[in-house]
Amino acid sequence: MTRHSAVPPPVTAVLDASSRWLPARLGEVEEILREQGEGHGETLAGDAAMTLEAGGKRLRPMLVLLCAGEEGRKGAVRAAAAIELVHMATLVHDDVLDAAPLRRGRPTVAATSGRGRATATGDLLFSRAFALLAAAGEGRSIELLSAASVALARGELAQRQDAYDTSIDEDRYLERCRLKTATLFECACRLGADDDALGGFGASIGLAFQLLDDVLDVRGPPERTGKARGTDLLDGTVTLPLILAAERDPGILAADLRSLDSAAAEALCDRIEASGALRQVRSRALEMVAEGKRRLGAAGFDAERRKLFDLVADGVVQRYS
Amino acid sequence: MTRHSAVPPPVTAVLDASSRWLPARLGEVEEILREQGEGHGETLAGDAAMTLEAGGKRLRPMLVLLCAGEEGRKGAVRAAAAIELVHMATLVHDDVLDAAPLRRGRPTVAATSGRGRATATGDLLFSRAFALLAAAGEGRSIELLSAASVALARGELAQRQDAYDTSIDEDRYLERCRLKTATLFECACRLGADDDALGGFGASIGLAFQLLDDVLDVRGPPERTGKARGTDLLDGTVTLPLILAAERDPGILAADLRSLDSAAAEALCDRIEASGALRQVRSRALEMVAEGKRRLGAAGFDAERRKLFDLVADGVVQRYS
Repeated sequence: MTRHSAVPPPVTAVLDASSRWLPARLGEVEEILREQGEGHGETLAGDAAMTLEAGGKRLRPMLVLLCAGEEGRKGAVRAAAAIELVHMATLVHDDVLDAAPLRRGRPTVAATSGRGRATATGDLLFSRAFALLAAAGEGRSIELLSAASVALARGELAQRQDAYDTSIDEDRYLERCRLKTATLFECACRLGADDDALGGFGASIGLAFQLLDDVLDVRGPPERTGKARGTDLLDGTVTLPLILAAERDPGILAADLRSLDSAAAEALCDRIEASGALRQVRSRALEMVAEGKRRLGAAGFDAERRKLFDLVADGVVQRYS
Repeated sequence: MTRHSAVPPPVTAVLDASSRWLPARLGEVEEILREQGEGHGETLAGDAAMTLEAGGKRLRPMLVLLCAGEEGRKGAVRAAAAIELVHMATLVHDDVLDAAPLRRGRPTVAATSGRGRATATGDLLFSRAFALLAAAGEGRSIELLSAASVALARGELAQRQDAYDTSIDEDRYLERCRLKTATLFECACRLGADDDALGGFGASIGLAFQLLDDVLDVRGPPERTGKARGTDLLDGTVTLPLILAAERDPGILAADLRSLDSAAAEALCDRIEASGALRQVRSRALEMVAEGKRRLGAAGFDAERRKLFDLVADGVVQRYS
């Protein structure tokens, strides 16, 4: 249940379809992100810059821009940069927590610069997100983003609280996914246009995103995900694949997660996969994406914009197909 | 160069002098702080609540309220709570970085709940600070507080970057103190009333606060500070006492900070004290406080308010006398 995997973005398809305006605005977002790691007369923010330049899918900024639309309000580019800064901050902090050596196939800030600098780098990215919006007087965006940040931290705390607890059920798991992932996707959409249909769409695909990420942690392969299989199991993070596998194959819970080594974690991954649970999780995620599309369909957006939304939604799924 | 020591607050003197209004508002701040750790239908925020309830000097909230004045704007109580939340967030994160077992004589969140929960708890407190202000539409306060938070993180990064580097000079040290400590004191004053004289006063006493804290790290005694002498030296943090001591006693730099154990750190503390550097640092800090008072004296505040400001300034010094 990490928040990310090193798979190429579905950006290209969306950019092709949307012709001119979206690439230019994504370019402006990148420019703002680059500025965040520079320009204070010192190189202290080097880690921050490294993190930002390492790229990523920029899914959340793209959602902000798409929801704002071609004629969207001027603040959308700034809001897109701000939400990516918050996302990056959580990634840097996650890597501190997990002592993760790699992220997207590159060494993490925590690995190259130590926990201390990584924690401060996350704090810097986080602070800059709000400073960026505050300087532009974007009060409503700050309200949305700070509320989503509260949810992220609560989700992280919930996950820590649940660690190694194999008695947690699907509802609890889904609540964690909402806090930790879906809320930020919903926030991205609302930053673009504060609309319930768009917010619901974001929440649906965000939840699907997390479910599919958790499938990937079990299934790998490592050369695609950029991390070892069973990382969640080794961290004690009980995800839906394990919960559903245990319903089909109760003996699966005989293993004490605290005593797993990486070989045992891989073996447990194989057993989860053999139970058929991964197909079940994947199918739920696809249903969530379909539901997200249906909600938008009922909201009266024009065909061109719906096509773009569908492409982003499909992109979330294609990363894992 | 930690940000805190376990010495009782100078609050009482200020409260006595200000008669009625200040204690009531500080009580409202405490109420808001308490709410931040509750009320989400779960006990996840327990660590956050524990951190907040552990109390502290509440110096920054008091500065906000004093600068806002008895007739101050309604948002002052909220701003006072928000700046304390940011301050607490940095303390929780500092304890993660330093793996500190104790803070104010109590176990740290990092020690009782692990780095993971402590990092997330800091993120939660931080997010709540901005959510609190955003919900009330306090745009200018968010701008001030996010800028100060950026400075805090940059100061932390600068300190990490300088670790074990005994060639850093006084200017660099002071720049770090400004980023890490003085800016938040200045921000507290400006949150109360966005006035250059008040901001300058806050910056002066904030800088003095950090210098005196760094004296205390060398001098102790541990039963008053709640931590071992020489903690900064063991962390590789070069502070003004060491910089000035080395000017008087160059042989003091023969020790490689990386190889210090706690006995060697205490011996180095004794040698720094013997050099007379602590008296020199203390005298600079007192001059900064006097300068801060002079600035306010020229700004035309009435006698009653100046008396309150002087009491806070003296409180910063008295903690260390």
